[in-house]
Amino acid sequence: MAKKILVIHGPNLNLLGEREPDVYGTFSLDDINEKLKKLAKEKKVSLEIVQLNSEGEIVDKIHEAKNTCQAIIINPGAYTHYSIALRDAITAVGIPTVEVHISNIYAREEFRKKSVIAPVASGQISGFGVNSYILGLEAAIGLIK
Amino acid sequence: MAKKILVIHGPNLNLLGEREPDVYGTFSLDDINEKLKKLAKEKKVSLEIVQLNSEGEIVDKIHEAKNTCQAIIINPGAYTHYSIALRDAITAVGIPTVEVHISNIYAREEFRKKSVIAPVASGQISGFGVNSYILGLEAAIGLIK
Amino acid sequence: MAKKILVIHGPNLNLLGEREPDVYGTFSLDDINEKLKKLAKEKKVSLEIVQLNSEGEIVDKIHEAKNTCQAIIINPGAYTHYSIALRDAITAVGIPTVEVHISNIYAREEFRKKSVIAPVASGQISGFGVNSYILGLEAAIGLIK
Amino acid sequence: MAKKILVIHGPNLNLLGEREPDVYGTFSLDDINEKLKKLAKEKKVSLEIVQLNSEGEIVDKIHEAKNTCQAIIINPGAYTHYSIALRDAITAVGIPTVEVHISNIYAREEFRKKSVIAPVASGQISGFGVNSYILGLEAAIGLIK
Amino acid sequence: MAKKILVIHGPNLNLLGEREPDVYGTFSLDDINEKLKKLAKEKKVSLEIVQLNSEGEIVDKIHEAKNTCQAIIINPGAYTHYSIALRDAITAVGIPTVEVHISNIYAREEFRKKSVIAPVASGQISGFGVNSYILGLEAAIGLIK
Amino acid sequence: MAKKILVIHGPNLNLLGEREPDVYGTFSLDDINEKLKKLAKEKKVSLEIVQLNSEGEIVDKIHEAKNTCQAIIINPGAYTHYSIALRDAITAVGIPTVEVHISNIYAREEFRKKSVIAPVASGQISGFGVNSYILGLEAAIGLIK
Amino acid sequence: MAKKILVIHGPNLNLLGEREPDVYGTFSLDDINEKLKKLAKEKKVSLEIVQLNSEGEIVDKIHEAKNTCQAIIINPGAYTHYSIALRDAITAVGIPTVEVHISNIYAREEFRKKSVIAPVASGQISGFGVNSYILGLEAAIGLIK
Amino acid sequence: MAKKILVIHGPNLNLLGEREPDVYGTFSLDDINEKLKKLAKEKKVSLEIVQLNSEGEIVDKIHEAKNTCQAIIINPGAYTHYSIALRDAITAVGIPTVEVHISNIYAREEFRKKSVIAPVASGQISGFGVNSYILGLEAAIGLIK
Amino acid sequence: MAKKILVIHGPNLNLLGEREPDVYGTFSLDDINEKLKKLAKEKKVSLEIVQLNSEGEIVDKIHEAKNTCQAIIINPGAYTHYSIALRDAITAVGIPTVEVHISNIYAREEFRKKSVIAPVASGQISGFGVNSYILGLEAAIGLIK
Amino acid sequence: MAKKILVIHGPNLNLLGEREPDVYGTFSLDDINEKLKKLAKEKKVSLEIVQLNSEGEIVDKIHEAKNTCQAIIINPGAYTHYSIALRDAITAVGIPTVEVHISNIYAREEFRKKSVIAPVASGQISGFGVNSYILGLEAAIGLIK
Amino acid sequence: MAKKILVIHGPNLNLLGEREPDVYGTFSLDDINEKLKKLAKEKKVSLEIVQLNSEGEIVDKIHEAKNTCQAIIINPGAYTHYSIALRDAITAVGIPTVEVHISNIYAREEFRKKSVIAPVASGQISGFGVNSYILGLEAAIGLIK
Amino acid sequence: MAKKILVIHGPNLNLLGEREPDVYGTFSLDDINEKLKKLAKEKKVSLEIVQLNSEGEIVDKIHEAKNTCQAIIINPGAYTHYSIALRDAITAVGIPTVEVHISNIYAREEFRKKSVIAPVASGQISGFGVNSYILGLEAAIGLIK
Repeated sequence: MAKKILVIHGPNLNLLGEREPDVYGTFSLDDINEKLKKLAKEKKVSLEIVQLNSEGEIVDKIHEAKNTCQAIIINPGAYTHYSIALRDAITAVGIPTVEVHISNIYAREEFRKKSVIAPVASGQISGFGVNSYILGLEAAIGLIK
Repeated sequence: MAKKILVIHGPNLNLLGEREPDVYGTFSLDDINEKLKKLAKEKKVSLEIVQLNSEGEIVDKIHEAKNTCQAIIINPGAYTHYSIALRDAITAVGIPTVEVHISNIYAREEFRKKSVIAPVASGQISGFGVNSYILGLEAAIGLIK
Repeated sequence: MAKKILVIHGPNLNLLGEREPDVYGTFSLDDINEKLKKLAKEKKVSLEIVQLNSEGEIVDKIHEAKNTCQAIIINPGAYTHYSIALRDAITAVGIPTVEVHISNIYAREEFRKKSVIAPVASGQISGFGVNSYILGLEAAIGLIK
Repeated sequence: MAKKILVIHGPNLNLLGEREPDVYGTFSLDDINEKLKKLAKEKKVSLEIVQLNSEGEIVDKIHEAKNTCQAIIINPGAYTHYSIALRDAITAVGIPTVEVHISNIYAREEFRKKSVIAPVASGQISGFGVNSYILGLEAAIGLIK
Repeated sequence: MAKKILVIHGPNLNLLGEREPDVYGTFSLDDINEKLKKLAKEKKVSLEIVQLNSEGEIVDKIHEAKNTCQAIIINPGAYTHYSIALRDAITAVGIPTVEVHISNIYAREEFRKKSVIAPVASGQISGFGVNSYILGLEAAIGLIK
Repeated sequence: MAKKILVIHGPNLNLLGEREPDVYGTFSLDDINEKLKKLAKEKKVSLEIVQLNSEGEIVDKIHEAKNTCQAIIINPGAYTHYSIALRDAITAVGIPTVEVHISNIYAREEFRKKSVIAPVASGQISGFGVNSYILGLEAAIGLIK
Repeated sequence: MAKKILVIHGPNLNLLGEREPDVYGTFSLDDINEKLKKLAKEKKVSLEIVQLNSEGEIVDKIHEAKNTCQAIIINPGAYTHYSIALRDAITAVGIPTVEVHISNIYAREEFRKKSVIAPVASGQISGFGVNSYILGLEAAIGLIK
Repeated sequence: MAKKILVIHGPNLNLLGEREPDVYGTFSLDDINEKLKKLAKEKKVSLEIVQLNSEGEIVDKIHEAKNTCQAIIINPGAYTHYSIALRDAITAVGIPTVEVHISNIYAREEFRKKSVIAPVASGQISGFGVNSYILGLEAAIGLIK
Repeated sequence: MAKKILVIHGPNLNLLGEREPDVYGTFSLDDINEKLKKLAKEKKVSLEIVQLNSEGEIVDKIHEAKNTCQAIIINPGAYTHYSIALRDAITAVGIPTVEVHISNIYAREEFRKKSVIAPVASGQISGFGVNSYILGLEAAIGLIK
Repeated sequence: MAKKILVIHGPNLNLLGEREPDVYGTFSLDDINEKLKKLAKEKKVSLEIVQLNSEGEIVDKIHEAKNTCQAIIINPGAYTHYSIALRDAITAVGIPTVEVHISNIYAREEFRKKSVIAPVASGQISGFGVNSYILGLEAAIGLIK
Repeated sequence: MAKKILVIHGPNLNLLGEREPDVYGTFSLDDINEKLKKLAKEKKVSLEIVQLNSEGEIVDKIHEAKNTCQAIIINPGAYTHYSIALRDAITAVGIPTVEVHISNIYAREEFRKKSVIAPVASGQISGFGVNSYILGLEAAIGLIK
Repeated sequence: MAKKILVIHGPNLNLLGEREPDVYGTFSLDDINEKLKKLAKEKKVSLEIVQLNSEGEIVDKIHEAKNTCQAIIINPGAYTHYSIALRDAITAVGIPTVEVHISNIYAREEFRKKSVIAPVASGQISGFGVNSYILGLEAAIGLIK
């Protein structure tokens, strides 16, 4: 059976394309999701894609993945910088997790340079715009092969 | 058409009047809302007022305001000090936002002296009790004139 | 009438027993709840037990306790380390609150050694595995006697 | 007899309008003073307005207010960030004091984010341009009613 | 043969009841010891109780316990915050150790919020007044069962 | 010829007796000066006493002392904590200098615990109320004997 | 003409496969280079690959790329954490640069969590073992398309 | 009956006169004690003088003073900088306490600039050589008059 | 018409030559001024030279220069390290400003290594004794050519 | 007459061999002392060896050495990290002192990486197990030759 | 014989003129060197000029200067901020050294504000563009006259 | 076959004897090497001795030792404090390594108190002048026996 990968878009990513286009580009979330689905099809993995603004709901979603998915791709948005609850959820389910960021978080404000998620993720990809997600999906597939 | 301003009361503000009256005074949230509505009527602006305890729901509410409101007045309560998600939501919608605090946050515990919201708000009003909201509404009207 | 105590299990505790057993042991949340209920019966207090992953919902639950419970036992999980909203909720309702931790948070990562809840709790019990809850219930009963 | 309010413009504010107009706007100090006087007249309070560059002279002026004014509005300019002497003067005279800033000090350089005055002021208004003074006068009137 | 538990009252605790009663309550050390002995009898464990002001003597006492006791309950008093010698002694003897505090050390001065003992103790109980010792004895019994 | 000692009362000390009597007591500056003069007479030294709010004027005054006084007693008030200009003036004139404080600056706010003056003063006396000045005069006389 | 990409393996990477295999895996540098060449061929880009232990030589190499390459892939090894000279070289030549790490630098020692290179790189890929390089090459190709 | 004052010379002060004479002068402890006794006789107070190297013994001595002395003069030596046990002992007995230092601790190494004793002492005298003790005795007499 | 340059000697510089000659040398301020005037004559620029101890007066002087001088040379003395008011004055008048120091401020006490003026000055010259001023004048002439 | 060297084993070293053998090895203190005595005999120096848990007693012992020993070898154990009293004692007696550590203190917990003793010791030897003492004795002999 | 001065251009300065012209201007290194040579000729000193990217080679070059040059002018580029090896080399050879920077390093990123070279240089000149070198040469000549 | 030990003298050590003799003594590197060779001969080990100023060349040298030497003695000079590349090289080759320092690095500037090498060395010897190398060789022989 095809492996399944959960893709989580964190808070405020629903506004992508409309929001600060100089930082995040002009692609919408739908554009990204189309690209991801296309690649998934090629690579013969199945995807579940969600966008959630609430920390608690992201925790719930990660828990659900425990028995249904083989890997997680997460752009934790602002929660990157302080949500130990997300970090604990990732540790608790024990699924390989790829952290992705559209912008280069190390070239922005000081407080964005620290990820509390990174130490428990398998790896991190940051700064390649929409391509961060595509590379993230390739990385995730690599992890579960 | 009348301009519309969104007023967001953050976490624990539903207990106002009952909670630590030496810090927050004895006015209830209803008392504040009445005063705000009265002034709004005088100034011929319309208001939408909500009280929300969940960070994710406040993010959702701010997103909604994108196409319906011209300004936001927010008392982020405890989220003032760590919610980068709220901060990002305010930046993402790009609406002039007034941050208000009932108590003088600079005369309280060390951790309350830092607002992660302030750098992306238009301005901040802190320490005038219930009057902080009234001044906040005047400031918001000033911003959208 | 019997006194009532609210027991709140914070984020990720639903996975107890499955999650990092070397840190948290192999007991499930149900096992803990059974032990708590048994002791409550002996001590003639009534219990309300919830598990919640969302910060906002925990705040709501604490507010509810204001008129229905005499004490709170809370394992704030990851929120221990940053949720000033929970801290404010505990202060706002003014009910004696016992903070419990299964693992010894002072023997773990640096960021887990700081509790923003502890300064407003009545006391804290940390590091005795499942027994932390039992001691916590005894402590809570001691506080409301 | 009409209440009297002292308005202190701190160091470098005499250059307002000429100085960094992108930060401070194009209004001159005279423009601000005209607006303040107009509102004072409406609200039936009297004003004393001074601009001073010297820390010691501001301390002297605050002392003088002890027996002649009911409130102070102060834009401490650069002294905001280090003048404990001003802070002590405000505490010493015990008059309600409103701290105002034209620019949003929390959206500027790191060292401008800290006010040593704020903890002893009644409240602070920051970021609304010239309107910060108008709101400050309203706040001051609210404090002495 | 009955298990034996060593109870160490650290520096200044001999003045309990006379010293800062608003922080430490009005119970004397004898009152606490009576309560501990009563519970020990019920639980069929034997106790050795000492009060020591000298860091070196507490180290000696812990060493002695190596071959005679199965658990230690220690209120390290001021040594909590800096005595790495006590910490090393606890690690060296390898006996389960419960750290107790009468007051909630997390609600006091900044320097009292850090325990150098906690990372090597089995667990910590803080803030329940005299009851901290009772809970501590129950916790210790739980550890050696 | 009698030795001469300069006594400098720093900013806000003119309000002594009226200002925060719980911190500074109810003695006025005149009361202190009377006591100092009486002791000076007994000890056969002459005094020059000034009260100055301006940092620059205190620097000028210290410079003047270079050729006229054998010792300085200074209560630098708020300038204690940041005036490197005063510090440099004291070093520059090279006269033995006694730093005095009415209140115990180490038992107050964190920022009052640091004196930039102390490292270049001969010694410091802090916390004995009006008596700090009397002890300071005795210390100064001891230094120039 | 085919685009050319410079691949720089920083200090100690020549020992790959022999060095700490639990951290860096058992692949040798040659294995990685083979994989990179294979992918480059498929993607029709040309590669120049070097391994250098000296900071100054890496700076020289980056300068050389200015007129010969369209992108750089660099694993700066230990220089990641302190070589502002490399950082300046990357800025100076203005070529899109992908920073890659075999191990997840955010899950290692504290001093490895900070990259001085990242703020001037286009993006960073960390933690996917040998695959970090493959993803890095794909990212680089994406940047120069 | 004559008031009694306890004088405690802390660790290493027994070597006074032999030890680092450029820092501490050439007076021996006996010289100081003679001067103190002479002044005490004049002022009609009785003295108890001890020199102790052990933290625990100093704590014991302070406890003893509780019922026998009206004031304490203490030179805590190296314990000044870290002995919270001494600090707690001083708070516990509640006797007015004067902290004295022979050298100016603020003109020495960074770690000597912080006294953990000062916040609970009545006041502090630092830097006047042997005279620090004489001034300290005068200050102590002033406190108990 | 000849360009005019304002030279400001900050606090305590009037004592130059008498004050700490090992740090500042034996030249007096007059010696420096003579050298400056001689060079100015050669270079055909006019000079205005002042020495001021008061922060507020230096601010006033800088303001005056706005319409009369083309450049400023300032040795801010102790104000270098904390006077944001001077910094703001320099920014406000927008005249090219050269910061000079006689001693090498980076080879002295830690607190002297930070200049709050430097970020808004055109450049800084430190450590060449009297020659710092001569180089500063050459630099200033270079800036206004 | 033969030179004499004092060897001080600090707190908890009496448990050597039994205590954390993975950190400290399986040699007992007696084993080390035998080796030291054997080498001393060869090198024709005499030794005095003590093990002390109390800070105050170590201070006393160092004082005693003033007139009887030519060098000190000290393993200060936990006191390494905070005992300024030991540091002062070493400075006070002015005898060449070699600080030794069995384990490599720089490869352990963060707080063990700082020695307050090292700046006043002649030198430090850390990390060679029992051999640290042998090297320490050779070093001490080298210092007093 | 003419005095000889070594001029060292540190890492990345070979790209001057091409690299970030908004920060470093459009002059090339050759332009600077021409200007330096011209001035040297006028002042009758001889120059040796090198540009080096490698820290080790710069150390070697400084060593060479020991017996051949009377002064050094160095723009340490990125090594300014961390190369203690350069710092030690300058101290070791004991030649007067002038540190120069083209840009004002105090007006740039936080990490560029700290020079580890400055405390051992004779002085520093920063922010005058190409002119920094000319002033540096004049300063160096002043030092060796 | 005789064991072989690599001795690396780091940057600036070639100037030993000429450089800061009050810190490093008057022995030259040749003197040290003679002493080392003599002891090596006695102990029947062979030595390879190098002095290198370049970080990259030291890394190369350490790599070479991988297959030729059984131990390394390194005085990393200034690289002690920041060269993670050296640290990684030592870890990568996995050879027992003794870190030596001529001066007591803990009695010097703050930045010299931190060694990034120490945590991966077997042990460290600091402060015994030339003898540090002799002790280091003995220590190295002890490690490979």
